[in-house]
Amino acid sequence: MQNRRTERNAFFPIFWKMDSHYPLVDFHKDFSLPKADTIHFQTEGICNIKIDGKAIDDLTGTFIVPAGNHRINVKIYNQATPPTVFMSGRYVKTDASWLATFEDKEWIDETGKSSDVSATNYQPAGYWNFNSTNQIPSHFVLPVIVQRPVSVVKKDNSILLDFGKETFGYVKLHGIAGRGRLQLVYGESKEEALDTEHAETFDWITISSSKKIDTTPQLSKAFRYVNIKNTDGLQLDSVSMLYEYADLKDKGSFACNDEELNKIYDVSKYTLHLSTREFFIDGIKRDRWIWSGDATQSYLMNYYLMNDNETVKRTMYALRGKDPVTSHINTIMDYTFYWFLSFYDYYMFTGDKTFLVNNYDRMKTLMDYVVARRNKDGLLEGMTGDWVFVDWAKGLSKKGALSFEQLLFARGLETMTICADLSDHKDDAVQYSKMATDLKGKLFEYYWSEKQKALVHSRIDGKQSDNITRYANMFAIFFNYFNEIQKSEVKKSVLLNDTIPSITTPYMHFYELEALCALGSQDHVLKEMKDYWGGMLKLGATSFWEEYDPSKKGAEHYEMYGRKFGKSLCHAWGASPIYLLGRYYLGVSPTSPGFETYEIKPALGGLKWMDGVVPTPNGEVRVYCNTSNIKISASEGVGKLIFKSANNPKCKEGKIIAKGGNQYELEIKKDQPYSINYKAVVSE
Amino acid sequence: MQNRRTERNAFFPIFWKMDSHYPLVDFHKDFSLPKADTIHFQTEGICNIKIDGKAIDDLTGTFIVPAGNHRINVKIYNQATPPTVFMSGRYVKTDASWLATFEDKEWIDETGKSSDVSATNYQPAGYWNFNSTNQIPSHFVLPVIVQRPVSVVKKDNSILLDFGKETFGYVKLHGIAGRGRLQLVYGESKEEALDTEHAETFDWITISSSKKIDTTPQLSKAFRYVNIKNTDGLQLDSVSMLYEYADLKDKGSFACNDEELNKIYDVSKYTLHLSTREFFIDGIKRDRWIWSGDATQSYLMNYYLMNDNETVKRTMYALRGKDPVTSHINTIMDYTFYWFLSFYDYYMFTGDKTFLVNNYDRMKTLMDYVVARRNKDGLLEGMTGDWVFVDWAKGLSKKGALSFEQLLFARGLETMTICADLSDHKDDAVQYSKMATDLKGKLFEYYWSEKQKALVHSRIDGKQSDNITRYANMFAIFFNYFNEIQKSEVKKSVLLNDTIPSITTPYMHFYELEALCALGSQDHVLKEMKDYWGGMLKLGATSFWEEYDPSKKGAEHYEMYGRKFGKSLCHAWGASPIYLLGRYYLGVSPTSPGFETYEIKPALGGLKWMDGVVPTPNGEVRVYCNTSNIKISASEGVGKLIFKSANNPKCKEGKIIAKGGNQYELEIKKDQPYSINYKAVVSE
Repeated sequence: MQNRRTERNAFFPIFWKMDSHYPLVDFHKDFSLPKADTIHFQTEGICNIKIDGKAIDDLTGTFIVPAGNHRINVKIYNQATPPTVFMSGRYVKTDASWLATFEDKEWIDETGKSSDVSATNYQPAGYWNFNSTNQIPSHFVLPVIVQRPVSVVKKDNSILLDFGKETFGYVKLHGIAGRGRLQLVYGESKEEALDTEHAETFDWITISSSKKIDTTPQLSKAFRYVNIKNTDGLQLDSVSMLYEYADLKDKGSFACNDEELNKIYDVSKYTLHLSTREFFIDGIKRDRWIWSGDATQSYLMNYYLMNDNETVKRTMYALRGKDPVTSHINTIMDYTFYWFLSFYDYYMFTGDKTFLVNNYDRMKTLMDYVVARRNKDGLLEGMTGDWVFVDWAKGLSKKGALSFEQLLFARGLETMTICADLSDHKDDAVQYSKMATDLKGKLFEYYWSEKQKALVHSRIDGKQSDNITRYANMFAIFFNYFNEIQKSEVKKSVLLNDTIPSITTPYMHFYELEALCALGSQDHVLKEMKDYWGGMLKLGATSFWEEYDPSKKGAEHYEMYGRKFGKSLCHAWGASPIYLLGRYYLGVSPTSPGFETYEIKPALGGLKWMDGVVPTPNGEVRVYCNTSNIKISASEGVGKLIFKSANNPKCKEGKIIAKGGNQYELEIKKDQPYSINYKAVVSE
Repeated sequence: MQNRRTERNAFFPIFWKMDSHYPLVDFHKDFSLPKADTIHFQTEGICNIKIDGKAIDDLTGTFIVPAGNHRINVKIYNQATPPTVFMSGRYVKTDASWLATFEDKEWIDETGKSSDVSATNYQPAGYWNFNSTNQIPSHFVLPVIVQRPVSVVKKDNSILLDFGKETFGYVKLHGIAGRGRLQLVYGESKEEALDTEHAETFDWITISSSKKIDTTPQLSKAFRYVNIKNTDGLQLDSVSMLYEYADLKDKGSFACNDEELNKIYDVSKYTLHLSTREFFIDGIKRDRWIWSGDATQSYLMNYYLMNDNETVKRTMYALRGKDPVTSHINTIMDYTFYWFLSFYDYYMFTGDKTFLVNNYDRMKTLMDYVVARRNKDGLLEGMTGDWVFVDWAKGLSKKGALSFEQLLFARGLETMTICADLSDHKDDAVQYSKMATDLKGKLFEYYWSEKQKALVHSRIDGKQSDNITRYANMFAIFFNYFNEIQKSEVKKSVLLNDTIPSITTPYMHFYELEALCALGSQDHVLKEMKDYWGGMLKLGATSFWEEYDPSKKGAEHYEMYGRKFGKSLCHAWGASPIYLLGRYYLGVSPTSPGFETYEIKPALGGLKWMDGVVPTPNGEVRVYCNTSNIKISASEGVGKLIFKSANNPKCKEGKIIAKGGNQYELEIKKDQPYSINYKAVVSE
């Protein structure tokens, strides 16, 4: 996945460390068999199968394990692709309960007796839905379906195709014959497809066939338009494309009375689906890489849409790689912290503690790396080789120790405290907790400006700078690091203050709008969403962009990184309305791991009605809300509906508890629909 | 190499961690070109070539670099086999001066400007003699030559072949036709080949061809005898074998008046050649693995025979693998220390400081691992998962903290002191030196028994044991840890004391005889060599064994690990006479790195004459010695001939310096033959 990027036909690989799999892996499981079992198996790699420590010499086909208690070991060597094994007997089957290790330490003494192996570190074997010998893990490809262009315009020596909207896959040339060298120039915009000199991606296809053939380039591409050049002298029947997709079903939904917002939600969904592939990638045209900052947002959107745990886990494994740690994740300091934070989110939304426990060692070594890079004041500043990113923003200072990085660091330490505790590393938990408290203290001591009522951007040579940016301030709101007074001060002094440089990426808009929602400003955020995402739609966007600056004109919008079409027009982080609408309008979020308990705080934000579904690990929460009625039904967990009402709300199916003022609560039990009549409070 | 072992046709992989290559590597070099250069290139893997940071989009064939100063980067992705590149222009060529990294950290900012990359850790690119586009590194195989059996005996449904001596390679069946399933049963002994139930290795070959074909099994094997079974009903013209070898030329030699010793030297050479393949392996029949203890002896023998640095370096890299360290090398505590020790030997014999400096980081992380495993007294004892090996010896206690392990640990720390110093890690050097001194102090404090005049074997629960073994005592002699009084005490109390359990492996005989030689007992050692290695020859050995116990009879000799033919009859550690004869009889050894200075201390040990060559990095030292004449010539370095004479020795070519008693010295300049007339002193 990390090696499918091309830039103007040149292979463009990642610039951080890529680890390979362990080429030699031992898998084992202990079985208690009521009867002898005949086992069909298949491996990827040379293998050794042992029953109770004794190797089988004939590996052609099947083997038999007698009744009783037996340990089956399969040791596989495969350097090219990861060692895999599939077994299907009546009782013996490969599944998630097998254990794996890259060093079994099974030596023998001079008499041939096996060593004690108890020091070996066994991990649960990786697995997925490969359920027959025909499904070879290393041959895995995503499915494709045929799509046809909505317009085909032929002119001098070329053909321009428009597929109607942003898409991804393989152009397919049908019935082509003759001799020639075609160039397929791809464009997310028409301008890009027509600008052979500046288009970001293209393919060459050499044709030398008297008979009509079909052909596709080897690598998938992202495009809406394809400009096929040098067509003269070649026969070509037609062109289609094979749309490649991850085949994840939507489990969440959102609809409301505002058609523009519905369109924003739909285009967000399409954007997220396009950039959810084997992994959550940043965008489909350019990088197609796994970036921690981008992925962390995709996870959150995923929890409100497809709710697929496997893609989250794969992406988090891929980001981390193997020890030793030699750089920040993706080389970016902030991206290291997002990786920590995403464990907590994962745990809350899925309830899957195992993943977290299995990753604790890797979390610890990464945190060791971070801790070792603190300066004399215990703060992190960019060292050579560290990319301090924060956001794409012109002139953003990266000098000194940024408040934003310390804030993420503190949150990372808090996450480590939780994970250490959950994985029974109690001493570590105490230590991380102390470090987090200490760092949060410094955050306010060093960065809070009582004069400016905000966290300043940086601390340079031990001195607080005057510079105020939105980043640390907005995160401190939804991290709940500010007290209530600070929150309302910061809302005014930073979030709603036009003199503070505005945000131009959907990436940081995600967090800015989250902060405002957390402060109850759903009305304001709704307008922002319609302005910003609606603004892209008005410019003809069929997927949401990497960056959007309303002040730009025409094809200027496509420019980035000093390149005419450098910007990605389908970027995962553009899809945040999925998350915002699910979490802060439908208002559903877990309050304990795996939605064992959760809350529903519907907020219309000026809408007349909204209707949606939020997926839970094994079910869903349905919310309908207008200004006088709320309907809730859930299929798991215990929910708490929290709402305001200007009148005395009524519900036949449960007992509403008045919390004082106009605040009310209702407990939501599973498999019981609730209907609440109330009167919406016009928000401040 | 580590995955070519089979045991009774079952794949038998290593039980320690196997690391893969980095699948994504960037290679670069800065060039100053007098003229434009056209460069032909080939890579293994998808590649990106940049000239001064700009990617080339057409990689079909050649590219041109203009005159002037340019940086060429080649970034290659290849998961199956290591990324490699070959370039040959007039000026631009790939060689050892290129640098490589697995993370170039070349990100760009929002304007497209490249990041500072100075924190990237560049290492010299690996290279070898692949000098054309036809030589693909991942396709490398050793050369083979045809050998024919010396006897072919056909009987009921089988054919027994004898190749006359131990050999290694691929059996080749010529002109075979019919339908059937042959079994090739291999034997290092005739007994093994004929014992289908217990032979360690065999192959199945299915034949289904009406036309005569030639066929070979896929994997090489070690054997002298091959028993081809199930031959009835098949036509078979003849059988040969393809002898596979590393093609390293002998640069050292030894000959003397004793024909048995000459035979021992020749069989030692053959043994070492057979077990010197892509790497120095333990033995050719069974493991075929890279073991640190075995390899360390092979390095030393290699310096006196083939003197090939590349095989040493490859083996040392392979043994160490990648960080993080998760076990001792080969899981064996002692084997970790041999790895450290071999750096010092390598440096002395080759003068190649670069290899040592390039490995310093890896040495340090391995030593960190060791240091972290000390017990409360600062000693190492076996923890779960540690294999405390020492030697194959019946009933050898591994309980508590063994003196042998502390001694190797101390020597490892001394090596680290030297390497830290050479690689400019002065603080580390101070620290390691302190730790070494401290540990050596403990070695004598905790283990020296004044009563028994020896280092005891172990310290259990803080108490010195009574047990005396040879191991620590003999190493402490040639490590020079004993004072002169202790040395002569230990010689009597341990080395020449028959009540101390004797050594039955050539492995530890290597060090035992080295210790005796270091004490000047060449006469005694010569007799030992003739007894022990001569003993194997008398039993018909054509290569030297993993273990030899003269008290055993007949096929008992082939038994080990509780298996009838478990013993390896061609084991690298069996070849130690190569080292002993070169170092302690011809008496040549470096006294500064790379033989810049060296000494020659000829010791006839009872021989009438000896004549030999010891290779140096770029030349050789020739030594002839009988009881009245010594002839020396050398092609590099400054030597010091140290010898005893009962009369006043004479030399026309240099000035002999009398050192008192009957001790004399003569400086040996390069390219100047010296002849010394003297009178040998009959040794004590």
